[in-house]
Amino acid sequence: MSEFHQAAHKLLVIPGPIEFSDPVLLANATPGTAHTSPAFIPIFGATLSMLREILLSTKESGSQPILIAGSGTMGWDAVGVNLVERGDEVVVLNTGYFGDSFADCLEAYGAKVTQVKAEVGGVPTDQAIIDALASHPKIITITHVDTSTGVLSPAGHISQLVKKHSPDTLIVLDAVCSVASEEIKFDEWGLDMVISATQKGLGVPPGLSVVLASKRAVETVEKRKTPVQGYYISWNKWIPIMKNYEAGKPSYFATPPVQLVYALHTSLKAITSAPISDRVEDHKAASKYVKDSLAELGLDFVPKSRDIAANGMTAVRFPKGLQASDVLPKLAERDIVVAAGLHKAIVTEYFRIGHMGVTAVNRERGDLEKVINGIKEVLGKA
Amino acid sequence: MSEFHQAAHKLLVIPGPIEFSDPVLLANATPGTAHTSPAFIPIFGATLSMLREILLSTKESGSQPILIAGSGTMGWDAVGVNLVERGDEVVVLNTGYFGDSFADCLEAYGAKVTQVKAEVGGVPTDQAIIDALASHPKIITITHVDTSTGVLSPAGHISQLVKKHSPDTLIVLDAVCSVASEEIKFDEWGLDMVISATQKGLGVPPGLSVVLASKRAVETVEKRKTPVQGYYISWNKWIPIMKNYEAGKPSYFATPPVQLVYALHTSLKAITSAPISDRVEDHKAASKYVKDSLAELGLDFVPKSRDIAANGMTAVRFPKGLQASDVLPKLAERDIVVAAGLHKAIVTEYFRIGHMGVTAVNRERGDLEKVINGIKEVLGKA
Repeated sequence: MSEFHQAAHKLLVIPGPIEFSDPVLLANATPGTAHTSPAFIPIFGATLSMLREILLSTKESGSQPILIAGSGTMGWDAVGVNLVERGDEVVVLNTGYFGDSFADCLEAYGAKVTQVKAEVGGVPTDQAIIDALASHPKIITITHVDTSTGVLSPAGHISQLVKKHSPDTLIVLDAVCSVASEEIKFDEWGLDMVISATQKGLGVPPGLSVVLASKRAVETVEKRKTPVQGYYISWNKWIPIMKNYEAGKPSYFATPPVQLVYALHTSLKAITSAPISDRVEDHKAASKYVKDSLAELGLDFVPKSRDIAANGMTAVRFPKGLQASDVLPKLAERDIVVAAGLHKAIVTEYFRIGHMGVTAVNRERGDLEKVINGIKEVLGKA
Repeated sequence: MSEFHQAAHKLLVIPGPIEFSDPVLLANATPGTAHTSPAFIPIFGATLSMLREILLSTKESGSQPILIAGSGTMGWDAVGVNLVERGDEVVVLNTGYFGDSFADCLEAYGAKVTQVKAEVGGVPTDQAIIDALASHPKIITITHVDTSTGVLSPAGHISQLVKKHSPDTLIVLDAVCSVASEEIKFDEWGLDMVISATQKGLGVPPGLSVVLASKRAVETVEKRKTPVQGYYISWNKWIPIMKNYEAGKPSYFATPPVQLVYALHTSLKAITSAPISDRVEDHKAASKYVKDSLAELGLDFVPKSRDIAANGMTAVRFPKGLQASDVLPKLAERDIVVAAGLHKAIVTEYFRIGHMGVTAVNRERGDLEKVINGIKEVLGKA
């Protein structure tokens, strides 16, 4: 089985989807199983509990994990549908492409969005954030890792600013590219919502929207003056279902993606077999190896400094005179798939390498050495 | 591999999810693959084309297949988000639980819903439908097979009524439990939207929302006076992406569920290897075998007559004096998983058997004989 899966494909080192372990892939091939079966219910329940655990939240805090068939993007809609009422003020901290899109999404639900935009490769200044909080917006959003720039926002520090300057503001962390690869302390930081997806640090095929909501976020929905702005993504529909599954009881609103839940369960069992801090350290070590190796080749990075660079991916500039068509096809010939640029302002100037999940943690696979050696060969520096 | 999958699980014969073939399960275990890779793009493109093909629509008609990570339920939201503007009149033809829910969903988007309710086990009368069309609603919805009753609505006939009495009304067919198991003639009937999911007649794990929209439905979105009521499910976002994939070009809005698309591609390749009418006939034959066998045991059905009973499932009443707890656990002991009742008015009085996909088409598996023999044993009629 292992050979079957490893043999046939190119090494996938983009900022998601990533490489999946064989046990995860096999779990995704679980035979037809009813969503209400005694076999599946404890699997779904444990998956919800482990999700809370790796985000360093407790059940006693009242936080609520929510897993629904959908993509990471659907998490933005979950904010718009459940937390936003028309006319609500929202501050979006923008560190790249995904900040722009998040703002677009919330505006579709009637939010009055103020964007605090960082320059490309930077993060917003503390003063800019404090200024934006002066109007006490209902929600502030942080893109933890914007995969268009590889910038890691200092989410813990920003949360402290919010708690000091506008404590009633709900803190929403877009953690699509950071759950299980970057440090997230849900309860300690006082986060209200983490949005993620399965195909990045969680190491599971795409198709599951992953959310953790705080007690305060759940109560915000309960206290709405206007109806929830949707149906399929409504927490009023889903929270009772999630509570039932976590309590071991069958429940139905819409059919969950059973096989993906089995796959996520398998991945979370592996992730929770060690402290999550160890896993974050593994990603830091992987990132250091990649970035040090690229720096030795004389390459520059999109993030302005190492302390705001993601540990799960690297956005690296081409050497002068080269572009994607000079590099990416030659890497693909070597069975290495990296990603082209995405941020419009610099789209031709850089490329992106993902190093999350098994690629970062199971170093004996040799994925990172393969990537670095491939880049050396292609740049004529082997 | 085949033994691995077949060995470990109970026979799943509920009205979805169903049994999946081993090639489909293996495709769902495809290793990490980029959603924009040259390997994946033609797979996604062909999947979209085959979906149109099995619904008997042509590309020349301007119909647009749309595949998004989500459940079947999300298709209802796709109607609400894209086709409904607040205050629009919608007629919902109700043959069970799923009609009620569909109406709830559309009301969340501001639709003024009129329900035409059939009695349990029946379908609305022609006159009731004609009366409801008198106000020329913007949309009429039909639940093709309501899995809570096993009733098959005569969708082709109802479409004729709509074309005659209110030709501008958009016809939306909830075909979650009918695509690839019941006859659907998208172009000939003049349908405007088919909503489905993968885990029923299509024979693929749950997690993909399946939609086919007519040219007229697409134009309805383009002509809206108010903005689309969402973001993730907005056709304005997705239609350009789907057009690109079908034309062989990479495109990104949100990450598609790559493995599920591979699995659907595998299933559709098998389905399209014969005329879709043959597959529908196979489901009719399977249904006849199940229903004749149950009738021989003296059991009654929820649908009032055979001509409005689904071919992909059977809703059958318990013998007098028996209920779910007398029958379903004993079937489960025999590794046979059927479903309990769902329609509130009769919930304790009946159970449901699914016979879609490989169970209906690959009769050499012996699934149906196993089910019927199990029921005979449990009812003491072996």
